[in-house]
Amino acid sequence: MSTDTTSLDDLDFSPGGLAIGDDVADLLFREARSVNTFADGDVSDEQVGTVYDLVRWGPTMMNTVPLRLLLVRTREGRERLAAHMAEGNRDRVLAAPLTVVAAADPNFHEHLDVLVPHLPGVRDRFPDPAAREALARSSAMLQIGYLIVGLRAAGLHVGPMGGMDAAGIDAEFFAGNGWKSLMVLNLGTPAGPESARPRAPRLEFDQVSATV
Amino acid sequence: MSTDTTSLDDLDFSPGGLAIGDDVADLLFREARSVNTFADGDVSDEQVGTVYDLVRWGPTMMNTVPLRLLLVRTREGRERLAAHMAEGNRDRVLAAPLTVVAAADPNFHEHLDVLVPHLPGVRDRFPDPAAREALARSSAMLQIGYLIVGLRAAGLHVGPMGGMDAAGIDAEFFAGNGWKSLMVLNLGTPAGPESARPRAPRLEFDQVSATV
Repeated sequence: MSTDTTSLDDLDFSPGGLAIGDDVADLLFREARSVNTFADGDVSDEQVGTVYDLVRWGPTMMNTVPLRLLLVRTREGRERLAAHMAEGNRDRVLAAPLTVVAAADPNFHEHLDVLVPHLPGVRDRFPDPAAREALARSSAMLQIGYLIVGLRAAGLHVGPMGGMDAAGIDAEFFAGNGWKSLMVLNLGTPAGPESARPRAPRLEFDQVSATV
Repeated sequence: MSTDTTSLDDLDFSPGGLAIGDDVADLLFREARSVNTFADGDVSDEQVGTVYDLVRWGPTMMNTVPLRLLLVRTREGRERLAAHMAEGNRDRVLAAPLTVVAAADPNFHEHLDVLVPHLPGVRDRFPDPAAREALARSSAMLQIGYLIVGLRAAGLHVGPMGGMDAAGIDAEFFAGNGWKSLMVLNLGTPAGPESARPRAPRLEFDQVSATV
């Protein structure tokens, strides 16, 4: 790895070229797995709040931070959600210590006077609901990326699920606030070694990149 | 924070409820800032490859991993890209040590025999190009979240930009492979304390969450 970059000298790099230790790289990415079955135990609202307080600093388009989280904890809430999940995901929602619906808020613009103080009046630049929804979905997906890393940084394991009737979930839970569900995440700790599939391959850097 | 969760006892938690140290939490999220002006210096393809090798393990829908990266390094490449950026972003693209166009590959399905070995023939379930593009855009945004965290984990600073003519970039660079540009990231180390805006606020957990 190139070492002629000026201000990188201050950092303590591991041999792999990272400024974080191998234990952290393993925890956040290399050993982390999508988990299907969880051990008994609780994941508190406070734990999720601690993770949010970490990952909310990640960048989004114009600092719109449109990610919203519905924590599904009660038996009744789980059953309402499970009814809109793909069949293979229903029991997972009923059994996980905590399930979170990650959603985008198309009304993010209502917060922009606070979130974008250097551009007064910027909230009025978003009159089109469809454009707001597209922007919210895109930046909220980016934030779900931060969130998954942050959950792992808190020692939690994540079972992300996209197999669901998103419109059904929105009608069930978000008729009042207009949130748009993007993904459902089960949270907890793995039941055992069989809780994740065998690791599937990834593409190599030269398969996903080009240089000009 | 609740401590009655069964298998979390093995982890060495900091007082804040995280399994990573404060130095890492600061590096990845709390002190990390979007940078507008960079110090002279190089960011090598190898550095970006090291980051990719870390973040490629992050979960995506069905392991489609549709993120693609165009590294823009040459003067000619920078000028071709800058022509499609919003005016305020042009000089940034011309000046950054390295600029990366993060894109989604709607033809991700061509790799699914390798990427999803437990579902033979799954590549044939994606005949509709528009549905593929929507899925690719969504999972690639998720991966950009991982990428930004990974770049910071390698000691790099990131200036993410969405102000651009995405269709123009796609026509300029991706006419052959069909990639769809999502975001442009300048990479390097900050020129100085003025390289980022003053930190803008974020919403509190109770403003972005609900429980059922």
